[in-house]
Amino acid sequence: MAKSQLKDFNTDLSEWFNDIILKSELADYAPVKGCMVIRPYGYALWESIQNFMDPLIKEHGVKNAYFPLLIPMHYLQKEKEHIEGFSPQLAIVTIGGGEELTEKLAIRPTSETIMYDMYKKWNSSWRDLPVLINQWCNVVRWEKRTYLFLRTSEFLWQEGHCAHLTQEESLETVKWAIDLYQKTYNQLMSIYGIVGIKSDTEKFAGGHQSYTFEALMPNGKSLQASTSHDLGQNFSKSFDWTVQDKDGKKVFPYQNSWGFSTRSIGGLIMAHGDDNGLKLPPNIAPIQVAIVPIPGHKEAPKKAQEIYTQLKPYFRLELDNYEGQTAGFKFNKWELKGVPLRLEIGDRDLINKTVLLVRRDNGEKIVVKLDKLKEKITEVLEDIQKSLFLKHKKFTQDNTHTVDSYDDFKKIMNTTRGFINAHWCQNAECEAQIKNETKATTRCLPLNSPKETGKCIHCGKESQQRWLFGLSY
Amino acid sequence: MAKSQLKDFNTDLSEWFNDIILKSELADYAPVKGCMVIRPYGYALWESIQNFMDPLIKEHGVKNAYFPLLIPMHYLQKEKEHIEGFSPQLAIVTIGGGEELTEKLAIRPTSETIMYDMYKKWNSSWRDLPVLINQWCNVVRWEKRTYLFLRTSEFLWQEGHCAHLTQEESLETVKWAIDLYQKTYNQLMSIYGIVGIKSDTEKFAGGHQSYTFEALMPNGKSLQASTSHDLGQNFSKSFDWTVQDKDGKKVFPYQNSWGFSTRSIGGLIMAHGDDNGLKLPPNIAPIQVAIVPIPGHKEAPKKAQEIYTQLKPYFRLELDNYEGQTAGFKFNKWELKGVPLRLEIGDRDLINKTVLLVRRDNGEKIVVKLDKLKEKITEVLEDIQKSLFLKHKKFTQDNTHTVDSYDDFKKIMNTTRGFINAHWCQNAECEAQIKNETKATTRCLPLNSPKETGKCIHCGKESQQRWLFGLSY
Repeated sequence: MAKSQLKDFNTDLSEWFNDIILKSELADYAPVKGCMVIRPYGYALWESIQNFMDPLIKEHGVKNAYFPLLIPMHYLQKEKEHIEGFSPQLAIVTIGGGEELTEKLAIRPTSETIMYDMYKKWNSSWRDLPVLINQWCNVVRWEKRTYLFLRTSEFLWQEGHCAHLTQEESLETVKWAIDLYQKTYNQLMSIYGIVGIKSDTEKFAGGHQSYTFEALMPNGKSLQASTSHDLGQNFSKSFDWTVQDKDGKKVFPYQNSWGFSTRSIGGLIMAHGDDNGLKLPPNIAPIQVAIVPIPGHKEAPKKAQEIYTQLKPYFRLELDNYEGQTAGFKFNKWELKGVPLRLEIGDRDLINKTVLLVRRDNGEKIVVKLDKLKEKITEVLEDIQKSLFLKHKKFTQDNTHTVDSYDDFKKIMNTTRGFINAHWCQNAECEAQIKNETKATTRCLPLNSPKETGKCIHCGKESQQRWLFGLSY
Repeated sequence: MAKSQLKDFNTDLSEWFNDIILKSELADYAPVKGCMVIRPYGYALWESIQNFMDPLIKEHGVKNAYFPLLIPMHYLQKEKEHIEGFSPQLAIVTIGGGEELTEKLAIRPTSETIMYDMYKKWNSSWRDLPVLINQWCNVVRWEKRTYLFLRTSEFLWQEGHCAHLTQEESLETVKWAIDLYQKTYNQLMSIYGIVGIKSDTEKFAGGHQSYTFEALMPNGKSLQASTSHDLGQNFSKSFDWTVQDKDGKKVFPYQNSWGFSTRSIGGLIMAHGDDNGLKLPPNIAPIQVAIVPIPGHKEAPKKAQEIYTQLKPYFRLELDNYEGQTAGFKFNKWELKGVPLRLEIGDRDLINKTVLLVRRDNGEKIVVKLDKLKEKITEVLEDIQKSLFLKHKKFTQDNTHTVDSYDDFKKIMNTTRGFINAHWCQNAECEAQIKNETKATTRCLPLNSPKETGKCIHCGKESQQRWLFGLSY
């Protein structure tokens, strides 16, 4: 694997992105336009995410279930804004078992409508609430312009759908979910980001209010990395679902939905990569340490095997005894694949009872005594996990601008890009004009945004808080 | 929950089956005909299966991946028998993103064609073999007559797809997979069954030879409970996929595919049920022990909570402190749901420092001292697991008939049904006539079927082995 064959990270991030995904064998293009194949190395990242999130979802009392892939069209139409939002993106089944169907079926773009119809059937008393259900599944949203992982016509996700007796309880779940997503990004994926509330234009179709986690990518674009929606009573009213409360009164339940998808892997790839390929944080990396006995050395392979066996219970390892590749080729290969640590072992190391550890994140080389190996690897992996997060946090903060003039706003969006904190009057027309003129959209009202009187960056009307703006993916 | 409302297990198994699935909240009918909703209690069974099988699949070196849901029609047509077998069952997408598609897309009924096209793209040398990939996903096969779990237009499964340099290696994987399935049925689900090879008529469309695990249900019908297919070189030839062997010669890889689906849960429900509902083997049961403090008793709820906390690290428990239900109602509820053990605790028990355990499988009541609770529960759960398996094994053996006269064959298939061991000439026409005349089909040639000269039960021609016949689901 010659480094010179790889695309340059800084010149064109999107070329680098596609190139690295294909060469590191994370994914490949599928024969159906806009769809992708997630190869084992890429799918292992999704499994890491599932292994991290699923126990936390269950700990919160949410149970997994499975609802059908196919949704009758008239179900989707029950919530007006919902169908308007999703209908341009539907894949529609018109033939089943050799016959034209009397009612066309949509492949789920999301499962609100099919799930809530069942919720209504199953639950009619306050005793049955809260309903706390999640599913891990595939969804289809037809896309014209696609990117691997970031925007594909089919993707994998979890979608949680809960229903509560009160708005307060529902909002607690909405916030718990966005916290869970932030934790997953921060702790598992070493990605820093901003949690906030979406503007009315950018919120979920049919929802009341959307919480989002926004992460800044190295090209200054912003990735809406996951969302948690407060649906209020919109859907229960559309479905005419009521439950009896303790006093026998009919109440429309308060609902929420929250999702985390394979899109996140696109963010992971971009956030940490460099010219040599991926950089995977140890907690999510399918392979944490690649053990490479130097090709041609006589004693090293046996020792490498011993080390592999000894460390196997503690780390995710790969022993590279592939024949017919040079040391340099192998080093480049594991760098490309973003394995956090490379363990090199040659015959000379055996005399000194040492091995060489090489960090993928900063290239540092560390000579380690064999009898300190487990402790040292543990320590270095933890440090890499932390360093990657701090680096991404610093990058985000360095590229977050507090701006009060529309000229500065436009200049930044035309050059370095990044996040902009600016006053906005919360008028949708103003928002649309800013988008037209600068391509920037409101990303969110950050949760920790302090009260501060100012003037809308565009129209000059009074504003009480700064919103976060950016160029979205 | 009054027992009298339940359907009778022996009078009409299929009525009982649907009734119990709905009432125990395993699943429900979906709005799309032939599809189902797997509710949390039912999905937890599927999660138990995944938790059992997935580590064993990985231990064998097979890695998980994800291939697209949508398959272009011309892909499916590449293998002639394959498309003939599946085309009557396809759900077809004709509209995407608001536009009529130029090529129609099938929702995967199985993924051979889409996966093997990628295998061809990725692998061109003997060094790249074996390819060992599995995916957990949904598939759609349009069905006219459906049963919950047993036959639904959409179902969940794992499908493993491997490719090897030699037929011997491929066959090893085929056998490993059917062994895995047998182990899952025996050890996790307490289901006994027969492993064997399918006749040419009954094998997988486009395959070379199919291995199957066949289980006998209480109504004497046979369930094809999972299959592992030796595909030979059929697909690699259809896809014109060759790899270079060590001598530089082009070789068509030998392939196999193997699948285990949510259909298995249908078998689980039927195999062990009775008039009072489900009986779940402890290893797969989402709830192993239901703790019921007797309603109205004053001290019991507190003690029940203590026991729950104490035992939680060791067993899957549910503490039933639901208000407004009588003791009898609660007992019936947990019986209906098939929870292996019920732990009753009343105020009088507190004086004796005991609780009452009630076994779901045989109704046995066991008084246990509080300080022996963990050990006793462990012991009883193990015994229930084993007892259910032995019971099902005995039932299967008691209903397996060795038959040499076609009159006896017909009589059995018209009355008690069950498995029949009979000689068959291996001629497909004879097989078709037997099916026409008795509804029985060849289930398999059991792997342990001894060589024995005899005469075909139908035409009298010479036969060397007995095949297993039965009425299929």
